[in-house]
Amino acid sequence: MTVQIGFIGLGAMGLPMATTLVSKQFSVRGFDMRSEAVASLVESGGKSAKSAAEAADGAEILVLMVVNTAQAQSVLFEAGALAATKPGAVVVLMATCAPSDVRDLAARIAGEGRFLVDAPVSGGINGAKTGTLTIMAAAAKPVFERCRPILSAMGDKLFHVGEEAGQGAVVKTVNQLLCGVHIAVAAEGLAFAEKAGVDPRLAFEILSGSAAQSWMFNNRGPRMLEEEPLVSSAVDIFVKDLGIVSEAGRATKTPLPIANAALQMFVAASAEGLGTKDDSQVIAVYRKMAGLNDNQKG
Amino acid sequence: MTVQIGFIGLGAMGLPMATTLVSKQFSVRGFDMRSEAVASLVESGGKSAKSAAEAADGAEILVLMVVNTAQAQSVLFEAGALAATKPGAVVVLMATCAPSDVRDLAARIAGEGRFLVDAPVSGGINGAKTGTLTIMAAAAKPVFERCRPILSAMGDKLFHVGEEAGQGAVVKTVNQLLCGVHIAVAAEGLAFAEKAGVDPRLAFEILSGSAAQSWMFNNRGPRMLEEEPLVSSAVDIFVKDLGIVSEAGRATKTPLPIANAALQMFVAASAEGLGTKDDSQVIAVYRKMAGLNDNQKG
Repeated sequence: MTVQIGFIGLGAMGLPMATTLVSKQFSVRGFDMRSEAVASLVESGGKSAKSAAEAADGAEILVLMVVNTAQAQSVLFEAGALAATKPGAVVVLMATCAPSDVRDLAARIAGEGRFLVDAPVSGGINGAKTGTLTIMAAAAKPVFERCRPILSAMGDKLFHVGEEAGQGAVVKTVNQLLCGVHIAVAAEGLAFAEKAGVDPRLAFEILSGSAAQSWMFNNRGPRMLEEEPLVSSAVDIFVKDLGIVSEAGRATKTPLPIANAALQMFVAASAEGLGTKDDSQVIAVYRKMAGLNDNQKG
Repeated sequence: MTVQIGFIGLGAMGLPMATTLVSKQFSVRGFDMRSEAVASLVESGGKSAKSAAEAADGAEILVLMVVNTAQAQSVLFEAGALAATKPGAVVVLMATCAPSDVRDLAARIAGEGRFLVDAPVSGGINGAKTGTLTIMAAAAKPVFERCRPILSAMGDKLFHVGEEAGQGAVVKTVNQLLCGVHIAVAAEGLAFAEKAGVDPRLAFEILSGSAAQSWMFNNRGPRMLEEEPLVSSAVDIFVKDLGIVSEAGRATKTPLPIANAALQMFVAASAEGLGTKDDSQVIAVYRKMAGLNDNQKG
């Protein structure tokens, strides 16, 4: 357990993931732009760094849980984190990024004598807190094996999806395609029930137990019927993630008509000023389009 | 149990539903255009009729499990089944029909001194065989209560969704909206994984256990990866049912962009000659659009 781990990006997902590693006796040095996030990690027994390069200093494994590819590039190359790692170190990219960007990043990292494991996750904040994430990792097998202990610590559903960087990102992209469509169509169905004269609460009760069920329908449906639900994941996350889906479809010449229709609904929700609201609030766009009165929700 | 039940429409769903009633000691006289279906019911202990009117003769409850509204109208009014029922009888319409058609039918039936219970079902052939259907029934409460014993015999999830004919059809329409989109988007996701260089079997294994899961993804996904899966429900059923969704959206002025995008994929599958194939084969349209070779499926 003397492997030195650098961890950059201590946000809603990154902080509980890093804390889980610490709780399992890994040596973690963390950095985030928000100093209170670093302080939280230290409280849990982790080490603090004042910069990305300091977090990476001498690390054999550098985990990135940043917002997007641009941040990953900035941290690695502009802030000097990659050069600070031990030669031969492994960068574990766990953020949701476009497959083509991940391939480019892997090539650049290889040019500096390090390795990339493309390892996006699914399972949300709860999965991050409890070490029960789904992790879809792509890398040459020996590189993957070097990271298996820390990946297994963060996720109980660990898959080696391929040897090439970008293949993990593909599976995550398909995951987000399905999740995003399932949320938008849940809103489409519940708004339709309401407009057509059926209590959407009753429709939810019936459909959540029928073949119409999805994990997202059952999870987001109740929040669609609340006035101001807590934000578990924001509308703008799906504007970003279905945007990655749309671009990856174009890049691979794969027409994705349903995913692109769903993307437009999240874009519309963001345009309505709901970008930072819970993603269940995409239903507001459907209700408005259907001429339903905002004051009689549900 | 001396209530006389007429049952018209002994197809893939109707025959097991009628047989379930017989097995629970109800007195059922059945009719179908296919005499072998009627013979099957008789083998199970039901009574046979040589015409729709004979099945309905003196019945207090007349169940219709026909293909669509046109067939229901033809049976009731042209074939004389409605006039043959006991005055004050209840017609239980369990087929998937457009909400507006169901309302029209209810008015016409009321004009003849009978009642309509709008009671579509979900749960498929297996639910029909085992008496475990979901039934979403709309009718005035006393009329609903008259039918409760036979509805409870066919379905273990019985909901009284409203007092007005058409409200059951609305819930069923939303059910089909979600089911149809979930099938089409499952195909979209798995074809995308394949085109982007990930084994779709591995993608299915990962995503069927993640937040990307839906009942339809988990049920149809494996059949999407087979060459010639058994037909559990045909492509053309969703051409019809998402067609009803599309029309009901237009009739109620509810924009349904995702459902309409999904409908086009089933129409394309039918145009490819796949109308009678298993609905999972909508994936063939995605694979063809993405330029994937038919001979290298999966």
